[in-house]
Amino acid sequence: MFASDSRSNAGSDYVTTYGKTHVFALGPDRLFVVLTAGNLSTTQEIINRLRRDAESDDGRPSLHTVDHLFEAADLVGQISLDVQEHHERGLRRSGASGSATLILGGQIAGERAGIFLVYPEGNAITVSPETPYLQIGESKYGKPILDRLIRPSMALADGARLALVSLDATAKSNVTVGMPFDVSLYRHDDFALAASQRFGRDSKAYRTLNESWNRGLATTFDALADSVATDDWTLG
Amino acid sequence: MFASDSRSNAGSDYVTTYGKTHVFALGPDRLFVVLTAGNLSTTQEIINRLRRDAESDDGRPSLHTVDHLFEAADLVGQISLDVQEHHERGLRRSGASGSATLILGGQIAGERAGIFLVYPEGNAITVSPETPYLQIGESKYGKPILDRLIRPSMALADGARLALVSLDATAKSNVTVGMPFDVSLYRHDDFALAASQRFGRDSKAYRTLNESWNRGLATTFDALADSVATDDWTLG
Repeated sequence: MFASDSRSNAGSDYVTTYGKTHVFALGPDRLFVVLTAGNLSTTQEIINRLRRDAESDDGRPSLHTVDHLFEAADLVGQISLDVQEHHERGLRRSGASGSATLILGGQIAGERAGIFLVYPEGNAITVSPETPYLQIGESKYGKPILDRLIRPSMALADGARLALVSLDATAKSNVTVGMPFDVSLYRHDDFALAASQRFGRDSKAYRTLNESWNRGLATTFDALADSVATDDWTLG
Repeated sequence: MFASDSRSNAGSDYVTTYGKTHVFALGPDRLFVVLTAGNLSTTQEIINRLRRDAESDDGRPSLHTVDHLFEAADLVGQISLDVQEHHERGLRRSGASGSATLILGGQIAGERAGIFLVYPEGNAITVSPETPYLQIGESKYGKPILDRLIRPSMALADGARLALVSLDATAKSNVTVGMPFDVSLYRHDDFALAASQRFGRDSKAYRTLNESWNRGLATTFDALADSVATDDWTLG
């Protein structure tokens, strides 16, 4: 399950909308989804290079030629480094950061599906049974609700709903995170997305989810009064 | 309502417990509560200087002599700057930061009770009807639940329970935030705390609150399945 927002900004006075979920459906034996965070120019060029190399036959290593998902993550990391170094001279002049962090997920036939987080340094980590999710970009606001509710055995649709709740919390607290939200579901051995859906401000499903969540939180919070009374607290 | 954790650390290999809530009950016409975040040496010295000056009669401006709460916040800011500058030479040598952020709340007779956030730069801001709370230190993880549930008209005890839920979310996501949690309640024109309570790992009230919260979240989350079905999502 993949989820991303689509807010991009260069300072608070230039805010734009760009999807951050990029799907590489490369035939019957491999599918990759790449999520991006960080410098928009860097991430666009990474995606462009990945597409160019996957479509060409010039023998360069590409998402088409790698044999394992961890090698695909390494490839994304090396291309990310190449792009960052290519623009370093110019970016250093202005003090801007060209760094980018990515999530690569998907499957190559013969292996389990998986996800990797690719650091700006080009190296990568994957998940574990204890930590079944990865986050990039503005990750703090949305993390507590993931930690409270995520389970490795969760159904894909539950994961999607949880991601929407987490993204909503983040967007409410940080204006550089915003709708529409993109959610993609991939089922093991399908080599095509099971579903992909965009949730905009006018999405009825999203509004319903949000209202239901806020109502449930309010009810849960009201019930806390019964559990913790302040009457017996120490006097100050 | 004031709430703080008590985790302090110098790197991940030196973690200690220090209360961060400091009460200045200075007679029938003034009470201040100071919460601290940042460099522990700086915040301890700020508190020590505030106490020393409030207890002495040498004519120095102090929490005893200020006429308005915003002047008390400014005093805390100036003392914070003095302490930071006093140690700058030594800290610069090691590259460590001596900066500190504080919350000053309380009341001086004749004014409304209030709270201020004192920046490391020494200047301060207060709350508004739309933003009725202030946070310092590791603020991101605990902010979404505050934004969803806080109301300016909330009862003090509800504010205390909400703060505990917010601190719990933060502590679960960041090991540099941890129990025990200190909660203090102040009622307008009392000039003494209405209650102050410490919640440690073995606090039954806190465990009850936590279990009730987690159970409610799980129930709320399960109910989302009815509101947003993925069956009618676009196929990818």
